[in-house]
Parts: sequence; structure tokens; C-alpha cells
Amino acid sequence: MTTRIFDGRRRVDAIAADGRGVAYGDGLFETMRVHRGTVPWWDAHWARLQHGAQRLHLRLPEPRQVREEAADLFANDDSANDRGGVLKLIVTRGGGGRGYAPPAAAEPSWLLSRYPVPVAVADGLRARWCETRLASQPLLAGIKHCNRLEQVLARAECIEAGVDEGLMRDLDGNVVSATSANLFVFRDGRWLTPLLDRCGVAGVCRAQLLPALQAREARLDTAALEAADAVFLCNAVRGILPLARLGARAWPAHPAIAAARVALARRHPAFALDVEHP
Amino acid sequence: MTTRIFDGRRRVDAIAADGRGVAYGDGLFETMRVHRGTVPWWDAHWARLQHGAQRLHLRLPEPRQVREEAADLFANDDSANDRGGVLKLIVTRGGGGRGYAPPAAAEPSWLLSRYPVPVAVADGLRARWCETRLASQPLLAGIKHCNRLEQVLARAECIEAGVDEGLMRDLDGNVVSATSANLFVFRDGRWLTPLLDRCGVAGVCRAQLLPALQAREARLDTAALEAADAVFLCNAVRGILPLARLGARAWPAHPAIAAARVALARRHPAFALDVEHP
Repeated sequence: MTTRIFDGRRRVDAIAADGRGVAYGDGLFETMRVHRGTVPWWDAHWARLQHGAQRLHLRLPEPRQVREEAADLFANDDSANDRGGVLKLIVTRGGGGRGYAPPAAAEPSWLLSRYPVPVAVADGLRARWCETRLASQPLLAGIKHCNRLEQVLARAECIEAGVDEGLMRDLDGNVVSATSANLFVFRDGRWLTPLLDRCGVAGVCRAQLLPALQAREARLDTAALEAADAVFLCNAVRGILPLARLGARAWPAHPAIAAARVALARRHPAFALDVEHP
Repeated sequence: MTTRIFDGRRRVDAIAADGRGVAYGDGLFETMRVHRGTVPWWDAHWARLQHGAQRLHLRLPEPRQVREEAADLFANDDSANDRGGVLKLIVTRGGGGRGYAPPAAAEPSWLLSRYPVPVAVADGLRARWCETRLASQPLLAGIKHCNRLEQVLARAECIEAGVDEGLMRDLDGNVVSATSANLFVFRDGRWLTPLLDRCGVAGVCRAQLLPALQAREARLDTAALEAADAVFLCNAVRGILPLARLGARAWPAHPAIAAARVALARRHPAFALDVEHP
């Protein structure tokens, strides 16, 4: 990992000790694929960040500076890994006192980090239903904020159970997403994806796939998901990840998923690689 | 503010850039009063921290080292301010990669900060009902974790509205707490305080007052609170803070609150000062 830290426009050596990120998770983040020096759907990532910043009344850094610094972080790529990498941007409200009150004139603090692309999963993911539920909070639903204890707990369950991913429900039993991916379900010849008006993150890859697959948003319960003909998870780093097992339920490879991967590859060549080299 | 930062047992210069605090709010905190070099109810603060650590499967630093460092942070007190100060401890899960998965062997990172005691409010607080609601999440209810965007948003409302504090409800309309204090309501000659099984922080001062006031935990709606004969807020830094106004509703000084302040002062002399010098 390589990380650069900024306070407003200035590059700094360290995260401020009075930072609101560490104190309250008072920030937003984006996790992006980098492919041959470009970020697929950069504008969509930035738009989601802006949407989150409006909800949290939080200032963002200058987008031009973020892009330039991100490009610089990947500039010395030796091409040994031509799949590129992963770029993570965290923006916090900056420094500011002991209390919850957001300072009126806080400069945002931000971090840019570079990571390798996770290894591809050849045969589809094994998942479980997480015991950890997602709380309903319409004010925070959809945005990619830094209050993620639910996901941390859910992910710990997956490790404990030895599965690749976990599917999460809200407290009413509605299926929402995986711990770090959205999900699509194929039923009766069409794609559905859970509504995210109460919780969950509205993924950038999900937003690409909604029109590409003519998918519909819906409330889904566990029975609806388990009865599906095919299920995949998706995010902007890994693209489409077919679900192979969920407890006792197994799904063989399905042509609708192969077609969805082709549709995603048409949206950005970064995800064509996954199709060619599974 | 003075802050010391630790990685496991080692004192370090800066918060790690891959820290899970800033990434996910993956931590816990305690905010404590310091009075003549001692922390009122230290054991209760530590017990709540341990309870939170169990829920989040998070390691804590050695309590002896935390106490020694805290004492050292206040050792050079020049007695100009004999009310002491405020000690804030943040414990995060430490460093660990890009993903939600908690690292198996993470050393906790922790920060100790010293702040002045907030100025006393002479005539009771003016409050409002916050629009921001608290999500129900039994897994996180009661513990003092670092996922605090709801409180940040609620506090921003208070500043915008020019009031001292905000009262918060859950999405079902149950009264829970203020943004940074618990609350007690006096009705029909006895004290009630909201149940915290779905959201809210189980305050250390609240735990002192429950037996001292023979108070009862209950679900309260806004009408029940507004019909109360007296209301106060409380936390371990400021003790008891009478509520004077809530929108159009005004409460004059009430002898039950004066009695509650005496009861709290009996529990710790730090809070006698507030009674003597309001």
C-alpha cells in the first residue's frame, strides 16, 4: 500500500490527531479500479461522493487535484501488472475539537491509497447469510460513508465461517447487498436488484448494470433470492462475481451471468479482462 | 488539546494511514472528567469499553498503561484550573488493509487527548427535537463506538437552530437521548430514562443516577417527555444539565432536579462543584 495524505490542498505527513475521521467516521470514501492509468466511471464515483457530501454537509477537495494526485500515484507503474490496481479515496471533514458539532470552516482531510487488484475467483463465490443486519437509516442509505461497523462485523462472520462473502439483510429481513458488493438476482427471465432506500451502498458498478441489464429495483426476501435462477455480486473493483453457493443452495454457471459480464465489458474494457482470463 | 498516540504498547508520532479508525470508524471511545487528578468512575468507563470491545471483537490496550499515560497527561496541571479537565480515549482496531475484514492479529491503536472542561450553563439548556433520527441496531446499541454520523448531523441541526442541545428519537418515534447526553424525565413523582436496547449510548453518569434516583427505564414518546414536570440531560463530563426550553415548552427550576444534583454530588465530588458554582 502507498498512501498520500492531504489537508485541504496541502500534502501533509500524517493524519491529524484531532481528525474527525478517526473520532466519528465522519467522512466518505470511494474504492475505484485503475485500468491502464484510467479510472472506469470516474465521473460516477465523483458524483456519488458529491451526493454524499451534500447529505453530510461536508466539503470535498478540488476534483482536479484529486485526479492529478491519483494519476501521479499510478504513474510509475512498471506494467508488470497491466490490470492496473485499486485506488481508494477517503475524504473526512477534517480536524475539529472534541464534540460532534461539525466545525463551520473545516478543510477536508483526504487520503489516496494504491492497492493491488484482488485475485480473481474462478468458480464463483461461496457465501452465507450474515447474522449481522443492516440498520435502516434513510439519511445515510446509498452513500458510501465511513460508518462501517456493520460491514466489519459481517465480514468477520464470513472469515469465521470460511466463506468468500456474506449476504446482508435489514432488520425486517429484506435482502440488501453483500458486505462489499451489490447483488443482482435472475428470476423469470429478468434481473432484479435490491432497493437501497433504507440502507446499503448504491454501487457505481450497480448503476452501470441497471440499464445495461434492464434490471428492476425491488424488495427481495431470502426465499426470493434462494429461488433465483442465478445470482451475482458486483462492485467497481471486481466487476461481476457469480454466486456459486449459499449454504446448501448451489448455482451452476448460468448463461444470463455470462451475458451480464459481456454487457459490463462493453461498458468498460477493464472488466473484459475478467471475462477473458477468469 | 494535547494528544498522545499509541500503537499497541508503543508511543508513536502519528496515526497510521492504513488505520481502521479513519477508514471505518472501527473503534470505541470514552470521554471522562478529570477532577484533581482522578477520573470519576474510571472502572465504569473501562467496563463499558470492555463491553464494547467484546461486541466488536476488538482488542483493548493494557488498562494500567492507559491509566499511567492519562495521569501523566494531567500531571503538569498548574492548578490554575482546579476543575481538572476532560480526558478522551479513542481505541481503534489498528491498521489493516483495504477491506472490511478485521485483521486477526491487529494491535489496537489508541489516542489519549486532554481538553478543558466545557463552561457551565447557568439557567438550563435550550433544546430542540432533531430531525435526524437514530437507526435501530441492537448489535451496536449502548456501546460508545466511533460510528457517529447520526450525532454529527443532529448536532449540526442544533447549531443551525441556535440551541444548546438536540433531543433524538429513533425511527419509530421513541425518545432516546440528547446528541451527547442521556436524559431523565420526572413524571408523577418519579424519574424515568429511555431504554437503550435499540440505539443510544448507555452513559456512565446515567448508570450512576439510575439507582441513585430509583429511576426506571421506559419507552417514552415526545408527548410523554413534553408532559414531564422536569427533564435533565446528563453525561460523565458535565454531570446534570437541566432542560429549560424545548421549542415552545419551558420548564422552570424544579426541586427534583436540585435533589438529583445533590444525589450525583454524593456519588462524586467533581459534580459538587457544579452545585456550588452553577
